[in-house]
This record gives sequence, C-alpha cells and structure tokens, in this order.
Amino acid sequence: MAATAQKGIHTSMLSDDDLASVSPALERFRREALEASLWKRPQLSRRDRSIVTIAALIARNQTAEQAHYLALALDNGVRPSEISEIITHLAFYAGWGNAMATVQIAQAVFDARGVARSALPAATPPLLPLDQAAEAQRAALVEGTVGPVAPGLVAYTSDVLFKDLWLRPALAPRDRSLVTVSALIASGQVGQVTYHLNRAMDSGLTQEEAGEVITHLAFYAGWPNAFSAVPVAKDVFDKRPR
Amino acid sequence: MAATAQKGIHTSMLSDDDLASVSPALERFRREALEASLWKRPQLSRRDRSIVTIAALIARNQTAEQAHYLALALDNGVRPSEISEIITHLAFYAGWGNAMATVQIAQAVFDARGVARSALPAATPPLLPLDQAAEAQRAALVEGTVGPVAPGLVAYTSDVLFKDLWLRPALAPRDRSLVTVSALIASGQVGQVTYHLNRAMDSGLTQEEAGEVITHLAFYAGWPNAFSAVPVAKDVFDKRPR
Amino acid sequence: MAATAQKGIHTSMLSDDDLASVSPALERFRREALEASLWKRPQLSRRDRSIVTIAALIARNQTAEQAHYLALALDNGVRPSEISEIITHLAFYAGWGNAMATVQIAQAVFDARGVARSALPAATPPLLPLDQAAEAQRAALVEGTVGPVAPGLVAYTSDVLFKDLWLRPALAPRDRSLVTVSALIASGQVGQVTYHLNRAMDSGLTQEEAGEVITHLAFYAGWPNAFSAVPVAKDVFDKRPR
Repeated sequence: MAATAQKGIHTSMLSDDDLASVSPALERFRREALEASLWKRPQLSRRDRSIVTIAALIARNQTAEQAHYLALALDNGVRPSEISEIITHLAFYAGWGNAMATVQIAQAVFDARGVARSALPAATPPLLPLDQAAEAQRAALVEGTVGPVAPGLVAYTSDVLFKDLWLRPALAPRDRSLVTVSALIASGQVGQVTYHLNRAMDSGLTQEEAGEVITHLAFYAGWPNAFSAVPVAKDVFDKRPR
Repeated sequence: MAATAQKGIHTSMLSDDDLASVSPALERFRREALEASLWKRPQLSRRDRSIVTIAALIARNQTAEQAHYLALALDNGVRPSEISEIITHLAFYAGWGNAMATVQIAQAVFDARGVARSALPAATPPLLPLDQAAEAQRAALVEGTVGPVAPGLVAYTSDVLFKDLWLRPALAPRDRSLVTVSALIASGQVGQVTYHLNRAMDSGLTQEEAGEVITHLAFYAGWPNAFSAVPVAKDVFDKRPR
Repeated sequence: MAATAQKGIHTSMLSDDDLASVSPALERFRREALEASLWKRPQLSRRDRSIVTIAALIARNQTAEQAHYLALALDNGVRPSEISEIITHLAFYAGWGNAMATVQIAQAVFDARGVARSALPAATPPLLPLDQAAEAQRAALVEGTVGPVAPGLVAYTSDVLFKDLWLRPALAPRDRSLVTVSALIASGQVGQVTYHLNRAMDSGLTQEEAGEVITHLAFYAGWPNAFSAVPVAKDVFDKRPR
C-alpha cells in the first residue's frame, strides 16, 4: 500500500458518502443498477465484465477509477499477466499514451497486491502458432487498401501486430478480441467492430456474451456508444453461418 | 476553501499571466472572443451557456477547468441541485467514469461554496408524470432494434433511463435534453442528435438557441465537432412542423 | 527545473524499469518499434514527427506524457514559438479545454528550458497576407451550409479562424495544416480530413509525408484511427491533379 499512497493513487472507489455528497441518486444507481444488477447478470462472467470495463477505461483514457477496477479485476480472477497483456494490447489499439497513463496506475496496484515481476509475461515469449492462410488473406487485404496510402503502416500491422502482439500467449485469442471489441465500442470507433467481432466469435465469444458486452458498455462508455454498436453487431450476427 | 485546497483543486481558471506565459494570443482570444463576445451573445442565456459548457467538459472528460466552470455555473444561476442532476444524467449519457471524475471536483466546489446536502436532489424523489403514449412508442422502437442484439440494454433503457432518470424533477426536461444534445455534439456522436434535438425542441428549446449551442460548442469542443453537428441540426430544423 | 518539480510535472518519460514493472513487452516495443524504427524512418522528419505527436496528444487530451514530448519537440528543432502556436491553434480545432490543460504543462517545460517571454509570438502580430479569392470561396461555402443553422458560427469562423488564427506567422501554413490534419485523425474526426489534407498538400506537404503521418499516428492515436483515415486520404490523393 505504501507505494500506492506514495503516488497518490487510491485503489478504493469513491465512497458512498463522497458520492452522495454530490449526487444521492448516483449512490443509489451504483448500488442498485451496477452492483446488485448489472455485475450479477449471468450472460457474462464477472471476469469478462472486468476485462470489458478495464478495456473501456483505458480506451477512453479515464484514469479516475482505473486503480479500483484493476484491483477488482484481480479479485474477479483476471491474472496479473492478463492485465499486463491487456495494457500492452491497447497501447496499439487505443494509442500509446493511453497505455502509458495506465501503466503508472497498474504499477501502484501491482505493488499494493505484491505482484512479482515473475508473474508478468516475458518481453519475447514463445508465440502462439500463426494461422498462415488467414494471415495471408488479412495481409493481402491490408496491402491492397492501405499499401497505396501508407506502406509503413502495412509493414507495422504485419510485423508488430499480427505476427507478434496477437500471438503473445498470456492473453487467450478470445480475450484479446474481447478487449479489442470493447475498446472499439467504448471509443465510438464502430467502423472496425465488424472485423473484430467476427474474429472474437470465431475464437469462442458467444452471441449472448457479445450482446451483453454492449449492455455492460452502456454503463461504462455511455448509452450513445452502446446504441451505435447495436446495428453493427446485428449485422455481424445476421451474416454469420449458423 | 479548505477542502478545495486540500484536494489540490483550484476553482479559479488559469490566470492571464500564466496563460500569456505560454500563449499571449490565447490570453487575447479568451478576453476578446470568449469573455467579451461569445458569453455575451443574447441568442443563449449565460445560464444555458454554463449548462452547455459543463456538459461538454464532462462528456469529454476534461477535468482541468471543470472546477472553474462549475463555480461559474453557480454564479450564472445554475442551482446546485441542477449541477448534481447534470452529473447524474451524464453518468449514463457520457459514461460512468466521466461522472465519477466530476463528482470529486464538484464535491470540492460545493464545499467551497457551502452547498448543504439538503440542497441536493433526493435519491428517490417523486417523479414527473410519464407520457405513456410517447414512452410506448419509444420502447417499441428500441425493442425492435436493440432487442434482438442486447435484451439487457432494452430493459435498462426503459427502467433506469426513461422511467427513472428522465423523470427526475430537479432538472427541467428542456434542460435535460440540452445537456444530452450538448454532450452528444461535444463527443462527436452525431448519430443520436436527431432524436435528442427533436426532443429538446419539443420541450421548448428554440431553433435560435439550438444554433447558438453549436456556436458555443465550437469553442469548447472544437470547430470540427461543431461543423459535424450542423448538417444534422439543419435536417432536424427542416423536417419539424412549423 | 524547480518550477517543473514544483508543479509535479516530470519532463522525463516513464523509465524502462517502471514500464517493465507492468509490461516487459511494452518496454521492448518502445525500444524496438518506436525509438529504433518509427522515429528513424526517413519518410517524415523528426521535427515533423514531434509536431504530429504533440498535436495528437493535445487533441486526445492525453496529458500523461505531454511534458516529455514537448521537451523532445524542442530537442527535435520545433521552436518554442511554434509550440506556443500549435497550442493556440488546437484551442480552436481540438477545444478550449484541451489547450488549457496543455498550457499548464508547456509552462513547466518552458520554465525548465529557460524559454523567455520574448521567444513567444505576440498576441497581435502582423498577419500573413490573406488569399482573398480562396477565402471568398471558403466563406461562401460556409455561409451556405452553416449560415441557416448557426449564423454566429459563420462569423467566428471568418473573424477568429480564417482572418486571424490561420494568418498568424509563427507557424508556417504547411505546419498549421499538418497540426490540423493530425488532430482530426487522432480524434477520429475524418469528416473534415478531406478539406484540411488538401489544404496541407497545397501548402507543401507531400503525399509520402501524408501517408507517413498516418503511420506515425497509428502508434500515438491507435490503429483504428489510422485505418479510418486511410480511405479518406486515398480519395484525396486520387483526386488531386498530378
């Protein structure tokens, strides 16, 4: 706790009394709608809800309650190695600065919980096997669309993202896609939800879970972002083979 | 003031000298374009401008000058109960974390201004009457579009938002819609401006006021967000019965 | 350094060890992908990369590493007067609050580097000559589209932006457009990239540089924002006379 206090980072959320001193209604909504209702719905596990919430907070650069939700994620069974990997993933999908802001908070949470360095994923671990056919298809598509505009981006997308980041084993492909989809919806970037939601479902995310991710994000990223994601998700659901 | 200082929150804005030490031009623009011009235009009251500004700052999670603009809102006649309710409303329309960051700042401003708990809206007040016909129409539309994708979201939209939040009496429906429209424009979510701008005008917001909201937001949410809102607002204006 | 320390603002970035204490992978990516690769690519100068990075951080309100990247910009040859002008420009293109948050950080960096007031652009300098024909065309277009909705916005766009801000001489028109385009892409506002990317290229930004701006922004604003900009940039490139 010393390190956390030292950095002025509190892992506890706003107290009921502090919240009620500005909005008694929000204190009630937190208790009734969030804690007693949303987080207890069986359509999505508490572990997955923690992953979705953290992804949303990082994507939206909302540092105020990140320490609380990172600590809650540990309580809900998200491993420190997975938290490390979520931050790493979002450095590329939400922006480098978003990840840097969270690193400082996660460092304090890890210190407070006694997470050892040995619990973190290696910088260069043995990678998951690459699906050569799917990767060739993806690379050809990006070469055709992005190549004429930003050839450097084509190279980095292959070398840094799909042949490195996405193959890191400390976060399961299904969870990595869950993080990506959550971040896209939470920051209003629905244009790329189609590809990544399909990828998530190919890796095991069910339709019921996907719908509940949107429900969960209504609270943490605002109703408008959730509603904007609905028609895109519907289109994905409708077009998938059954 | 003690509590404010204790939390390191300053209710004063950046001084002229501090601002000029980085940009003499911005010090001039603040004086000439904002204070002597924009805030004095008669097309929108100072009270409404404060509501629009606060909504924009919360929606964009911009905490740096929130204390100043919350204190200015009190000076401009926005009641503490209305500020409390604006934050409550935006917990759902801008995201839970946005509201939580502002609660801490508002708490310091309320402390500094001696706002008593009794001045805040109750957690569960008697609600405004529900327009059953309009609500049935809204609910049917959302059931049809959102239901097949995220049934949980349909339920929360009715129970938490339209049968609870929107009926809370401490913020007039016209002002609640003004907050919603301002937050949507300020965060670039124009897709839902059509519904909420119509609702705002049904509740009394005039076309001249709506246009001036966009003008005001150009300064506080950036020119691109204001320009993106123009064609959507024009379409709403054109299609409304005269 | 005293002033910087006093304000609790660190101009150094997160140390390798701090970064590795949460993500050894990010420490490697920073070294290999950012420092040893991206920043050394010849398609865009280090000076331009600093301008693009600062514009992205301000547009996204990411204060965590702004001090580091402002100091790096000075090292890369961006003049203090240009940094002042970039912040001034983005007060209008990214929102007043974004600029205010950065002013406080830039003040600390300027103090630490001993930047004198005399190095800053005057509040009201002699302006660059106005291209009357182009401005008349722009004004007529905005009058036609924005005038019926927000007449105040039409007036401010002419008087504050195009007859004042854009003519300030401390930032070259090509660089001012580079800042604008970077901010638009970094905040996902691709709708106005077409006009401003054309303007940037009219002022001397090459197609290769423009493509590399997108590549650079993939890292600092996230892959999704970069990919969303690609088709818009391609359309601009395809339609320009050769």
